[in-house]
Formats: sequence, structure tokens, C-alpha cells
Amino acid sequence: MTTTAPSLFQQEIHVYSEDTDAGGVVFHANYLKFFERARTEWLRSLSVEQQALRNRPGVIFVVTDTRVRFHCPARLDDLLDVSVQPVQPVQPLHVRQASMQFAQQARCGTRLVAEGEIRIGCVDQHTFKPRRLPAELLERLP
Amino acid sequence: MTTTAPSLFQQEIHVYSEDTDAGGVVFHANYLKFFERARTEWLRSLSVEQQALRNRPGVIFVVTDTRVRFHCPARLDDLLDVSVQPVQPVQPLHVRQASMQFAQQARCGTRLVAEGEIRIGCVDQHTFKPRRLPAELLERLP
Amino acid sequence: MTTTAPSLFQQEIHVYSEDTDAGGVVFHANYLKFFERARTEWLRSLSVEQQALRNRPGVIFVVTDTRVRFHCPARLDDLLDVSVQPVQPVQPLHVRQASMQFAQQARCGTRLVAEGEIRIGCVDQHTFKPRRLPAELLERLP
Amino acid sequence: MTTTAPSLFQQEIHVYSEDTDAGGVVFHANYLKFFERARTEWLRSLSVEQQALRNRPGVIFVVTDTRVRFHCPARLDDLLDVSVQPVQPVQPLHVRQASMQFAQQARCGTRLVAEGEIRIGCVDQHTFKPRRLPAELLERLP
Repeated sequence: MTTTAPSLFQQEIHVYSEDTDAGGVVFHANYLKFFERARTEWLRSLSVEQQALRNRPGVIFVVTDTRVRFHCPARLDDLLDVSVQPVQPVQPLHVRQASMQFAQQARCGTRLVAEGEIRIGCVDQHTFKPRRLPAELLERLP
Repeated sequence: MTTTAPSLFQQEIHVYSEDTDAGGVVFHANYLKFFERARTEWLRSLSVEQQALRNRPGVIFVVTDTRVRFHCPARLDDLLDVSVQPVQPVQPLHVRQASMQFAQQARCGTRLVAEGEIRIGCVDQHTFKPRRLPAELLERLP
Repeated sequence: MTTTAPSLFQQEIHVYSEDTDAGGVVFHANYLKFFERARTEWLRSLSVEQQALRNRPGVIFVVTDTRVRFHCPARLDDLLDVSVQPVQPVQPLHVRQASMQFAQQARCGTRLVAEGEIRIGCVDQHTFKPRRLPAELLERLP
Repeated sequence: MTTTAPSLFQQEIHVYSEDTDAGGVVFHANYLKFFERARTEWLRSLSVEQQALRNRPGVIFVVTDTRVRFHCPARLDDLLDVSVQPVQPVQPLHVRQASMQFAQQARCGTRLVAEGEIRIGCVDQHTFKPRRLPAELLERLP
């Protein structure tokens, strides 16, 4: 069995007013948005458009589990580096695989701001039961 | 031709952290959310569920025009009264009517915080061309 | 040492358009908003206003850790029951306690939609170092 | 009196899941976020950081008036070009000027998706009364 090495993808995200709250820092739920933006750009960098995946009849992706730890605050105008790291290399031979897990970090310069573990499941659009990851996604994963 | 008098609907909305920004006040775009929540509850008070309207084949509602003026800031934990006032009474005889307009206000006690004029259009789900308002909605309007 | 029993608080939350995404379901990050709304209302039910806590010189509350599992989707117009359950009873004698942990659920009727474990820390406003929970909060906890 | 010509700034914004709603299109309030992101990047391109402006004692910027017309929907993965056009050239000699107005558009390829007119006021941080625009901003405006 061959597995490919996990890859690290980085996305820059600027903090705007919309992201902050009255505490003067980024509102905690917004890191889940930042993490998803980075995963989306990672997929796009692999030439996978979410809309195209969505348009496959019957199959959609859903976030099934998130863990986020908040280490230090980010503020208005901060520039965050948000990373995407597949935790277990996706295995093309593992044809029944129905989910992917990612380790993600948001850093501001050298400071670790937040880190997350995000699990994405592939499910049937109507029944929400687990479905195998699409072949065109598996083929493109590093 | 008979027209019914416009009605005034009120919805209480608490300001949470998610609604505020680093300026310590409610982020301006969120008043459009508050206005929509109030319109949704107004529709619900008329026994009209958005999902039911959405499920009518081919027709959806879209916001086509918004004007919002911001008079004074609202802050964390403020309790807002958000009103819904149909600007032109919807006319049941006007069978080809494809949009509705609302005047809305967000008040905090006696202070006028923000006021908006919101136009909602009824459009074909696929072509986004204007469509007549659904009969079941027109029947229930005051 | 006496500890009080954990209490269960429930908050009803309607799903609006703003909460959903193009998948037709509630966007995953928004459950963290729902959980915070419920915690805020729980505090308010104990006569604790966040703004008042915030105004204490030097001390603010921050979310330090979140875990959310998503079991089934919620949709537009769904009415969610969001619960707040302190995981470890807060101990008034434990004078140096600097954080609280909550188990929270979002249910739609009998369906468990999402469940979370949320840790809130009390920190110095400027240094973000842990600080003891305010006495006026500890006094009011059940 | 010399006035400088209005400049046109463009910012690319990708549509993510967080931006869409159950109608399958970008939620209307989010265009106000997109417009603000573009204005922020326009300011940054002039070497003006919002945080720096905010840190000036006593003066903050607030959105005082917005008008947005929605022409056609944008969807997940669309790439929007969001423009910033000062409506009246800001006049350095006009020392008492307390607000700026912008015409903004969101386009997707050749399609006009939404257009807005946004007024930003400079106000005292505590009283929210109008204050003159900061000199360091006026100096840098084109």
C-alpha cells in the first residue's frame, strides 16, 4: 500500500471589522470560517471546485466534528496565515473512505493564534448517510 | 378597490457578541439580519413559513433593494425593538404584483438606532425573472 | 466543601436565512453562535449581564476551547432548543478558579442536531493571562 | 482650489459557504461586508490602517448610510470584483469635512451583481458626534 505524504497548504486572511467583536478581538466562531476558507482554497489549488463536487448527484460534504483551541487573540487588520494539513493521508486504495480529517492553524507572524481539528464527511444529499469520497477528489489529493 | 391598512409588527432582538465589532457597537451589516429576522417572524405570525414558500415549485423571494440609515449605536446586551411596516399596502386585486416594500426600524428604548427600507421581490428560482406574489401569501396579508 | 448541582438551561432559537448556507442547512460555525447566545441568556437568567462583567476593570471572558460534533442538519425555519449545562459545578470555595466548562446541545424536537463542549476563561484584558472568576459571578452561580 | 480625480480601486473576493444561504446564493447582508473589505483594502493601499485610525484618541469611523441594489445572484465559488469609488472627491481644503461617500459595485465577470452607496462618518468615540476627518487620512487620499 502506498500513501502519499501529507501536504501543508497556507492561506493568508486579513482580519476585517466583520470578524471582530466588542472584546476587540476576532470572534471565536469566525476561526471556523477562516479554516473553511483555507480548506476551500486548498481544494481549489488541487483544481477541485466545491460547486463541482456539490453538483455530483446525491453527494455533499458536511463538517461532522470540530475542535478549536484559542491560544491568543487576533485583532483588526492582523494578517493571519491559516494552514491546512490532512491528518491521515487520504489513501486512494481505501475505496470506502467517507471522511477526511484536517489539522489547521491560524498564526499571526510567529504567534499561534488558534488551532483546529476538523472532520469532513461525505454524505448522501437526501439521507445524510455516509458515502464514499468521490473518485475525482481522491485522484487529485497529494 | 379595497386596500387594507398597513400593520405594524414588532420583534425583540437581543444584541450578542456575534453582532458587535471591535468598535464596541453592532456591526452595520447586522441590521439587515435583524430586519430580516423581524420580517420572517411577521410572516410566521401570519402563518406563512418561508420554507413553505420556498417549496412552491419555481418561485423564491429575494431582497432586491435595501436602504439603511444608522442614527446611533447599539451595544452588547442591548434589547432592540425591530419593527416591520409594509410601505404600500399589498393589494389583493393587484394580481401581477411581484414585490413588497417594508419600512423597518430598530429602536433601543426611546432611541432610534437604525431605519431601513427593504424591497423584496418574488422571482423564478432558475431565471431570477420577476414572478407574481404567491396567492397564499396575498390571502394572508393584513 | 459544598458544591451545587449543575443546572440545565434551555434557549429556543429559530433558524433564519442568515444561519443557513448553500447546502440548505445551518452553516456549521453558527452553532458556536447559538451556543454563546444560550450561555448569554443563562447568565442573564442569573442576573449577570456580560457588559457588566466586561466593565469590571481589567477582566474579560474569552472562549478558550470548543469541541462541536454535528449529528444531523437543521434547516430554515427549524426551531432549536439549545441547552447549557455546566460540566463541573463551579465551586465557590475554589477561589482561584479561572475557567468554566459547559456541555451544550442543539436539538430540533427529539433529534440531536449538534453537541458542544465549550471552555470559557477569565483573563486579564491587556495581558490575556488567566484571572480568577469574578466574585459576583461565582455568587450567582447555582 | 484643487481637487484630485476620484480613483477606482478593485478587490477580488471569493464566495465561500459562509457567504451563501439556503437559497443557494450570497446572503444579501454579506454584500455590505464585501463592500467594507474593499474599502479597507483601498485604505490599506493608501497606507492607512484602520487600527491606526482607531487608535487616534477620540475619533472613530462609522457607517452612517447604506443603499444596496441587488441585480443578479452570486453563488458559491464565484469570484467577485468589488470596486471602491469615492463619489465626491475628498477636498483637502475642506477642513471641516466629517464624512465620505463611496459608490461600490460587485461584479462577477461582466455581470453586475450588486451596487451600493455607502456613507462613512467620522465621529467622537464617546459622544458619537461628527468630527473632522483626520489629517493623515486626508493627506493620503488621491
